[in-house]
Order: sequence, then C-alpha cells, then structure tokens
Amino acid sequence: MNEFDLIRRLTRALPTNPGVVVGAGDDCAVLEPGGPDRLLLFKTDAVVEGVHFLADAPPEKIGHKALARCLSDIAAMAGTPSAALVTVGLPRGFQADWVEAVYTGLNALARRCEVAIVGGETTTSPGGVFISVALLGWVPRGQGVLRSGAEAGDAIFVTGELGGSLAGKHLDFEPRLAEARWLARHFPPHAMLDISDGLASDLRHLLSASRTGAELLGAAIPISRAARLAARAGSGAKPALLAALTDGEDFELLFTVASRDAVPLLDAWRKQFPGLPLTCIGKITAGEGIALRDKHGTRTLTDHGYAHFA
Amino acid sequence: MNEFDLIRRLTRALPTNPGVVVGAGDDCAVLEPGGPDRLLLFKTDAVVEGVHFLADAPPEKIGHKALARCLSDIAAMAGTPSAALVTVGLPRGFQADWVEAVYTGLNALARRCEVAIVGGETTTSPGGVFISVALLGWVPRGQGVLRSGAEAGDAIFVTGELGGSLAGKHLDFEPRLAEARWLARHFPPHAMLDISDGLASDLRHLLSASRTGAELLGAAIPISRAARLAARAGSGAKPALLAALTDGEDFELLFTVASRDAVPLLDAWRKQFPGLPLTCIGKITAGEGIALRDKHGTRTLTDHGYAHFA
Repeated sequence: MNEFDLIRRLTRALPTNPGVVVGAGDDCAVLEPGGPDRLLLFKTDAVVEGVHFLADAPPEKIGHKALARCLSDIAAMAGTPSAALVTVGLPRGFQADWVEAVYTGLNALARRCEVAIVGGETTTSPGGVFISVALLGWVPRGQGVLRSGAEAGDAIFVTGELGGSLAGKHLDFEPRLAEARWLARHFPPHAMLDISDGLASDLRHLLSASRTGAELLGAAIPISRAARLAARAGSGAKPALLAALTDGEDFELLFTVASRDAVPLLDAWRKQFPGLPLTCIGKITAGEGIALRDKHGTRTLTDHGYAHFA
Repeated sequence: MNEFDLIRRLTRALPTNPGVVVGAGDDCAVLEPGGPDRLLLFKTDAVVEGVHFLADAPPEKIGHKALARCLSDIAAMAGTPSAALVTVGLPRGFQADWVEAVYTGLNALARRCEVAIVGGETTTSPGGVFISVALLGWVPRGQGVLRSGAEAGDAIFVTGELGGSLAGKHLDFEPRLAEARWLARHFPPHAMLDISDGLASDLRHLLSASRTGAELLGAAIPISRAARLAARAGSGAKPALLAALTDGEDFELLFTVASRDAVPLLDAWRKQFPGLPLTCIGKITAGEGIALRDKHGTRTLTDHGYAHFA
C-alpha cells in the first residue's frame, strides 16, 4: 500500500464540524475564524532522519527544510504564514548544540517570513530524529487558491526548474510565498499546489481535484541543472526530462490561469521576479490523465512521481 | 541535559510577531485572530513508540492518547478544541489495519469533543511509529487561564486521583475539557495547567510562572488505586504518596482559586461533576518552592516529577 492509498483509506470518514471550510486533501486545511476579512490556514508536516535528510546533513539546513516544507503549503494557497509550533524527537544522548543549530536554521527562515515560533516541544525518539512542524497562516477571503478550480483551456505554469532536488535544493529551497500572493492579487490562479511528490504526481492531484486532464509540452518543461548533470552520469542514469517529471521535493508552484492571462502574466512576472523563471508547460484539457507531447508525438504519461511508500 | 534545560535553551530567542499573545512556555500558544470575541489556542504534541506507548498497546488507545494529550492542554487553558491535523510516521512494512485502528480511536475521541480532523499526513519512519498531533482551539477573551496568575493565599486544587497512570490510565484518560470550561465560567482559576510530568514537577512550573511557592498537605493528596496497588508490590516499590507526587501522565487539572472560593467551589463541583473527585491539596505561599506538610512535620519537597530526558 503506498502513501496515497493509505491516506485515501484514512480520510474516508474523518470527523468534521461547522468551522471547517476545506478539510483533508488540499495543501492546507482552511478554517473559519469568524470575522469578515480572512480565513485561517492550518498545515503540519514532518521531516524524518534517513527519509527527508541524512544524519550528516548540516543541522541548520534540516531546520530550514522542516519549516520550509510547511511554508510551501501555505504559499500553495496564496496565504501568509503567521505562527508555528515545532515538535522535535531526539534519540537519547543527543547533542544539544546540534539541536540548537537546527533551531538556528529554522528561526532564520521564520524571521525572514515573519513567522512566530510559539512553542518548542521535545520528546525522546529511540529510532532517530524527527521534526514535526505545525503552521498557521491567513488568507484574505476570496483570495485562497485550491487545487480544484482548473478549467479546460487553462494554461499550466510552473515556477523555477524541476528535478534533481536531492542534489541539494531539497535542503535549502525558498518557499514561494511572495510569488503566490502576487499571483493571487494580479493573475488569480484557478488551481495551485506546490510540487512535493514530483510534477507528474502532483499535476495528477490537481487534475483529479479539478476533474480535468492536461496536455504537457515535453520541450517546455524547465529542467534543472542538477537533473541534467545527473542524467549525464552514465548509462543507468534517469533521463533529465523524466527526472523533471518525477523527482520529488521541487517545492515549486504549479498553477493554472485562464489562457487569456498567460501572455500578460509572463510579461508582468519577468518584471516582478526577474530572478525566478516562470514557464508555461501546457494546458488543461477536458479529458482525463496527462498527455505528453514531444518530437516523437503524443503519449499518455504513466510515470508517477515519487510516492513515499512505493 | 534534560528536557526542561533543552527547552529553556531553545526558547531563549524565538522569532515572534504582533499576532502572538502568549508564546512558548504555557500549555498552549495564544494567538490574536482579530475579531472581538475570542482568542486562538494552538498546541502540538507527539507520541513515540517505546516512549509513550509500547508496540503491543491496542492501536485504538494509541490514537486516543495522541489526541487526548493535546486536548488536555486546551483544557488547561479552559478552551474549546476545534480542529486537528495528524502526522503519522510509519516503519516500512506497516499494517494498514493497524493504522486504521489508530485512527478509529483518535476519531472516536474527536467526535465526542466535536473536533474536526482536517488532514492526515503519513511519512516513512525507519525508527518506529510516531504520531504528532497539532490542535487548534478557541477561548473567549478574558476566560483563558494561564499558568502565571497564582497568588499567595490561593487554594490549590486537583481533579481526579494521581499516580500509577502507566498501569493503564495513560492510554485512555479523558481530557477535562468540560470541567475546565465550567471552572472558568463559575470559579475562574487564577492559574491552571494539566499534570503531564507529575504533580511535583508541574506544580513547580505553575509556581515558577507565578513567582510564588506552595504548601501541600500530604494527607490530602488524592492517590489513585493503581498507585496504592503498585506500592504494595514489594519492598522496592515506590511509596504511594511519592507516586502521586512524581508519576507522569496523570492528565488531571491542577489549578488555584481565591481562598474564599474554595468551599463554594467544592459544593458546586460535587453537584456538577459527581463522578470526578476534586480535592484541595494545599495553598499558594509568598515563598519559593514546595513545602510538604504531613504527620512528620513540614519538609521541602525535592522530588521532581518525571523529566523526559532525566
């Protein structure tokens, strides 16, 4: 059973109440705080030694990653993060300096994003280090972006470059908070998420939530330098395009806008965020699944992204 | 370095922002949601295999405990819980039925407390199972109870009976949500927390936050049947009173009220919650530390409760 099957099974009949606007299944939960202006965003995520980082990774980067993953989900809803709680599981005999360095990295990112760290729990974890972050954020009513609003004809965009994150980016990526808020104000996406499981897998999540299909242009997909370098490593290496489609932990924004917005968006983006590529990689279709168009023709994309329990 | 020293070191200079009413150091963080009526409570906590439960514990009870621990912290602030996110770390080769049973126990408690479960993350955890719960709640402005308000002369109360929780109660205790809200409305506590590290240790937390001392009456401390049974086990057993003072995971409320409220509170409590004992165990003093009065006289209590990294 992979992670997605398990989550489907566990989320079939979750308890709910009238305060829930969006429950399980999107990037964040959306809750009703009362008051006329804004909605509450709520997200939690964990990083585990041996899964999301290796024991010899720089502790500052581990702390950065633990918070950045949650921030990326707030970005995916076009929200503004506000406060986080951090639960750290530590083996007996841990080094206090190491834990403090984790917090140094986490706190530096929190300060830059104006996020308050409002509690620090620690617990013994005989099996290894884990860091679980819970994050609250806000989004103006009417500006939150779900996964479910894509419409046939929409242009599909992705920020940054994809693939090869394990070479380093997964530990020091920047959550796209400012970019997402700018989008929500100027070119409201119909649907958006952050790419954590890989483009192919996460696009499927967006399509499934929106009950649409997609056609991708193979030549348009922005491939990272890390993925290109890895592809040159030898005959057994993953081709670079496949890496961009299926490698996990890109933490870039994937979103759709009305097709008439596509060109004005690209023009405005270049002025607003000159250092970060924005690429149109295809369009939403009325069908099902993902068609990949390249020089060999059009084929159905069957490669799933990275699934945690695959 | 024990848990408390580490937390002190980590929480010296946490990032903050204007939305924070109470940061690290109390039972929950308190946040400003805007709006005139209420404040937001935010708490996270984790249970770890081999630390908070054994591998052969009934999975329903593990799920119950994971949520109940956070609920108990919302109770300690006299709040009402609203929505939770659950992060589960699972070894490779986990049994889906086992995970579903964890959720069965967690969901049953959530339904009873009208808590929505708004997301379920799972991740691989090579070292063993952990479950991290993040919980939001609300408290009417002016009714939240912190640890820091105890005043010399206050009567100290505790709900239920203490000690011996490891014999079973730690897996199926009931968070004292209704009791705490009733208290806040009818006999507003000056200070309150939930006992998780043991009476002696948690009372110290309350006294330290309130800059006061306490005098406990040894004979008044309500000792659980489990602690009495364990004390009879043999010559090496922990005396029952010591167990009530120092065993962890009672998850009862410890609070102080003005001394003039003590008798009316006991009368009203018996009518309102006939099934749950409420006991006055001593008084707040202007001094420092905890004095224990029993038939042998008065002595300074030096026994700390259970500290996770001790």
